[in-house]
Parts: sequence; C-alpha cells; structure tokens
Amino acid sequence: MNLNIALLAGDGIGPEVVDQAVKVVNAVAHKFNHTVNWTSALTGAAAIDAVGEPYPDETHEVCMAADAVLFGAIGHPRFDHDPKATVRPEQGLLKMRKKLGLYANVRPTFTFPSLIENSPLKRERIEGTDLIILRELTGGIYFGERGRKDEGNTAFDTCTYTREEIQRLAKLGFEMAMGRRKKLCCVDKANVLESSRLWRETVQDMEKDFPAVEVSYEFVDAVAMRLVQWPSSYDVIITENLFGDILTDEASVISGSMGLMPSSSIGIHTSLFEPIHGSYPQAAGKDIANPLATVLSAAMMFEDGFGLKEEAELIRTVVNKSLAEGIVTEDLAGKGNKAYKTSEVGDWLAANI
Amino acid sequence: MNLNIALLAGDGIGPEVVDQAVKVVNAVAHKFNHTVNWTSALTGAAAIDAVGEPYPDETHEVCMAADAVLFGAIGHPRFDHDPKATVRPEQGLLKMRKKLGLYANVRPTFTFPSLIENSPLKRERIEGTDLIILRELTGGIYFGERGRKDEGNTAFDTCTYTREEIQRLAKLGFEMAMGRRKKLCCVDKANVLESSRLWRETVQDMEKDFPAVEVSYEFVDAVAMRLVQWPSSYDVIITENLFGDILTDEASVISGSMGLMPSSSIGIHTSLFEPIHGSYPQAAGKDIANPLATVLSAAMMFEDGFGLKEEAELIRTVVNKSLAEGIVTEDLAGKGNKAYKTSEVGDWLAANI
Ligand SMILES: [Mg+2]
Ligand SMILES: [Mg+2]
Repeated sequence: MNLNIALLAGDGIGPEVVDQAVKVVNAVAHKFNHTVNWTSALTGAAAIDAVGEPYPDETHEVCMAADAVLFGAIGHPRFDHDPKATVRPEQGLLKMRKKLGLYANVRPTFTFPSLIENSPLKRERIEGTDLIILRELTGGIYFGERGRKDEGNTAFDTCTYTREEIQRLAKLGFEMAMGRRKKLCCVDKANVLESSRLWRETVQDMEKDFPAVEVSYEFVDAVAMRLVQWPSSYDVIITENLFGDILTDEASVISGSMGLMPSSSIGIHTSLFEPIHGSYPQAAGKDIANPLATVLSAAMMFEDGFGLKEEAELIRTVVNKSLAEGIVTEDLAGKGNKAYKTSEVGDWLAANI
Repeated sequence: MNLNIALLAGDGIGPEVVDQAVKVVNAVAHKFNHTVNWTSALTGAAAIDAVGEPYPDETHEVCMAADAVLFGAIGHPRFDHDPKATVRPEQGLLKMRKKLGLYANVRPTFTFPSLIENSPLKRERIEGTDLIILRELTGGIYFGERGRKDEGNTAFDTCTYTREEIQRLAKLGFEMAMGRRKKLCCVDKANVLESSRLWRETVQDMEKDFPAVEVSYEFVDAVAMRLVQWPSSYDVIITENLFGDILTDEASVISGSMGLMPSSSIGIHTSLFEPIHGSYPQAAGKDIANPLATVLSAAMMFEDGFGLKEEAELIRTVVNKSLAEGIVTEDLAGKGNKAYKTSEVGDWLAANI
C-alpha cells in the first residue's frame, strides 16, 4: 500500500518526538511491504518565523494531498509573554482544524501493564480499561450564537446541533465499535436538554443499521461518576463537544499515563494524528522528551487512517515491550535506573518492529 | 437558641433515617441548651396518598415558617411502573425547590478515616480531602429557551446568566470559604463561553470585598481532571448549574462513601438539608438503612442553617467514632462483624453526644 503522510513536526519537542515516530513507521512499512511518502511542512511558531503565518497555504496543500497528517505539537513561550503578538502559533491549530474539516476528536484511554501503579485509581478499578471517547468538534455551545444583553449584565450562549452533524459523528462511533468490543455509549442530558434529545433520537434511529452493536444511553453526570468507578465497563463513547471536552480530560488522567496518550482528529478532507501532550519547550532540543505518545499516534494512524490494524497492534506490542524492559526516557526511568535518550528509544522501537 | 425545624421524612427509608437524625439533634440541643421545635409535614408519595399532592400547601407553610427543613427522601416504585400516574412524588421536589427559592446546592466531599479504603482512588490521593461544591440551581442551560427548527432537524438550548444570579451564588461561596480554609475556586469555560466570562468578571469584582480569600479560576475540563488527581487541593468550588451537575456527581464517588454524603440547598426563604442517597424502597421499614448521611445533613443544618459550628463538629466527631468502633449498619459492617439496626445506630449516636 502507498501511504502518503504529511509530517507537521511543529514546535518545542515536536520535531524530536515526530522523528522517532517516523523511524517506527518506516520499520513497520518495510516489514509489511508498504511504501511511505513523507512530505514535511511548517506549522506553529516555526512557520511564523519562516513565513509569518502559523498554518501557511503551502502547508494546507500538503495536508490536503496526504492520506493522513502526523502532527507533533504547537506553541512557544515567546508568544505567551508577548501581549503585542498579532499572530500566535495556536491560531494555526484552529485554522488547520477548520480548513481540514476536523469534526471528530478521538481520544483513547488505556493502561500499560507495567505503568498501572501510576494511576490515581486502584489497580482493580483501572485494570483492563480500554475505551475511546469520540467528541464532536465543530458544533454545540462552543460555536453557537453568544452575547450580552441588559447593558452587559446578562450573558448567553447557544448550543445548537443538526441531525446531520450528529449522524456523522455517530456513524464513526458505530464503525469504531464494530472493530472493537461492539459496545457504544451515547452520552447526553436528554432528561433536560432539547439538543440532547435530538442526539438520542438520531442515534436510536441508527441502531437498526448496526444491529451487532449494543447501544446504551447515559447522562453526562452519571458517566463522570462511572469513569472513576468502573472505567473498564466502557468501549466506545460518543458525545457532543462540551461534554466531550470535560469527559476526555477526566478520562485522560485515570490511566496515570497522560503523557503517553495518543489522539486523532477525523476530518472531511483528511485526518490528523497527534499526542495529547503539548510542545513542552523546556525540554526542546535536549533529546530527553518521551516519544511514546507520538509513536502511539502513529499506531492510531495505521488503524484508523489506513485501516491497517495488524500494523497498529505491532507498534503497541513493541511499545509495551520497551516499557516492560525499561527502554524509557527519564520521566519513566525511576530512581537509580538508566534513562534512555529520545532518539535511543526510537531506535530501539524501530529495531524491534 | 430556638430552632424551628420542619421535618419532611418523605418516602421509603426516609422516615427511619430522619428519626435517627432527630434523636441526634435533640441530644445536641440538650447539651448546648437549645430548644428545638419540630413540625412534621407530608411530602412525596406519602403526601399523594394522604391529600393527592406531593408538596401540599400545608407543607409549604410549615417550611416557610421554619428556620430550616430536614428532609429524608422522595420516591416510590409504584409510580415508576405506572405510566398513567398523573402526579408523581418527584414533582413535589421540583415544586418545593421552586417555591422555597432554593438557588444553591451545597455538596461536600470528605473522607472518613476508617472508610478510606472504599475509595476508588489510592489512599495518598484522597487523604485529607475536604471540599465543598456550590452549584447554582435556578439558572443556566437547564432553564433557558430551547426548541427545534428545520422541521425538527435542528435543536437548540440556551444558557443564560445574570450578574445578580452569579453574585448571589458567589457571595455564599466567599462566605463559606471565610469559615473554612479561605480558598475559593471559580469553575467556568471563560476561554470560550460568554456566560462564563460574566461569571469570571463578576467574581473578580467581588474579590475586593473578601480580601482574605484566595481566589482561583479554573476551566471545567481541568477541574474534572484535578478532582481525580488531587482532590485535597480544593476548598470551596463555585460553579454554574450544568458544570455543577457534572462535577458534584464526579466528586461524590471519589470518597468511596457516596451513601454517607449529606447536602443542602440554600433558599431565599429557607434552606433544606438532605442526604444525597434516595428513598431506597427495597430497604424501607426493615430498620437496616444507614442513617449517617441524614445525621451528617443535620450537622450541616447546624453549621450552615443556624451558624452553630461547634454543634456540627460534635456530630461529625461522634459519627467518626461510631465508624471507628464498628457501630454501623449492615452495608458497612463487613463480613463476620455485627451489623447494628438503623435505630440502634441512632441511639448510640445520641447517647455519645
Ligand atoms: Mg478539554
Ligand atoms: Mg448530577
């Protein structure tokens, strides 16, 4: 298979961690007889420095021509401390999301057998957890009409959803559930909100097209409880933008390995795969950053971007092996143990593919 | 001091658990030379059976004349399974909230030294947690304009807040923080929502009136994370209705003692104190229900309803003593240990005041 991948390394530790993912992807491609065509493009502060724009048109063209985008991180402290900056790296992210039509954020939460003690939850609560939250990313209260009335003393925000927006997100959820444990949970507040009732009736109408999937409907406050009590009971969760914003973050801490979590954003035109951690500028250029979240994002790219599940599983297996054998960067090494460099971890992973 | 208390026992285990709280309150009043005037009134299914109405006018008059309302629980399965029921016990709750002007729900989360192992969180994460979430109860997206457009294919909900609504809730939060560790966290999504920006600017304006209180502002998704990671870092949290709905439920499970958690609802006319557990009809009349959540609600009544902190602390101390000495109902007794009856626990608590 020909895999055309746009490579957007971005800022801070972005380039270093993306480099390791490239090594791993190339090793996997070699083993499975795929051909990878990488095209690098500028984004973030790096793009501002080069062409004055955090998501230049040339970068957009590279993304549009690609089958998938592998993304590092964006952001530089220079802009945070400069209130006069007229253009900021993070604007690139927003522009990119909009122009690529990224409508679904996919956030898995799972555990690593050798890191399970890092979880704030007890072992018996978190063991076996392997869930995905699909968050709608372009609708809801973050994009509705908002404003002030009564001389600024009353403020309002509007949450709006259309049946089509819900169908698009829910279809992805049903399909993901089909490739997993076939359980789908639709999270809403349908006992109160009209938009939630539209979510629920739309998903209910779609059940007949996916008869193998067991669908449940739960209220967002109940899910906020159950994610702490019994996270392993979930498979695929679908939900609207605001609820997803809250629940994905809550879910990200329960594994105790937030720094290792990958993500993807599914788009109309193309999809993007990136670690949930940021650009971590303090560590940039030191060859100490943990590359595993980016490597695991590449695994998601194989599975969800190219439909190549075996390749994705192999990456995950090798990552777990590196953790079990202590081939890890300083953040995971533990006192008295050898800490490997970012590049050494990447080399080891590629060699063990 | 004269304490006029309306006693609304309600349904299911309500009457039994409220009885134990009455014993404890009477013992405390005797010790501290207060005079308690109890006035019982009907509510819930019990009121429907007697007068055809879950929150009769006579009951409302009793509540209005009281300094505080001690409430058991409402709900009977007979109504859940009868789709033709024209009047339901829960409607009494809604009517009561509205007529008493209950605008703030107060939900503490704390640990019991002897029950800390019941938490889904590890001991070192939960130890020392003692926080209160104040949830605005009459505004926001649950009460805004909602509906459908485009032949039912578009649905909308509106979140509206006025400066006055926010001030009323925030004032309570500042005052509660003054009586505690003097830390207040305002939870919003001010980077996106206009209503959140009104919350934040209103609370910022009030900071000067409470210079001793250290105020922080956090986004709701970050708080959903931190409640699992480091719950002990919070003191008083204030937030709007929907965010509070989600966060109070999330917080309720972290202590591992959800069945023991009290709550209050602060009203314009009077305030109400109640356990967060429900009417638990399966256990009704068996003298086995755990009365501690109601007894601890009575402690909140002393502290927040009457401003009598010492009395409240005494109740909490005696409750912790009963747990440590194993004077507990069957839900907490543990295998091979003696389980005490509901009434025996109440008697023991009253005798140890
Ligand atoms: Mg978030
Ligand atoms: Mg709730």
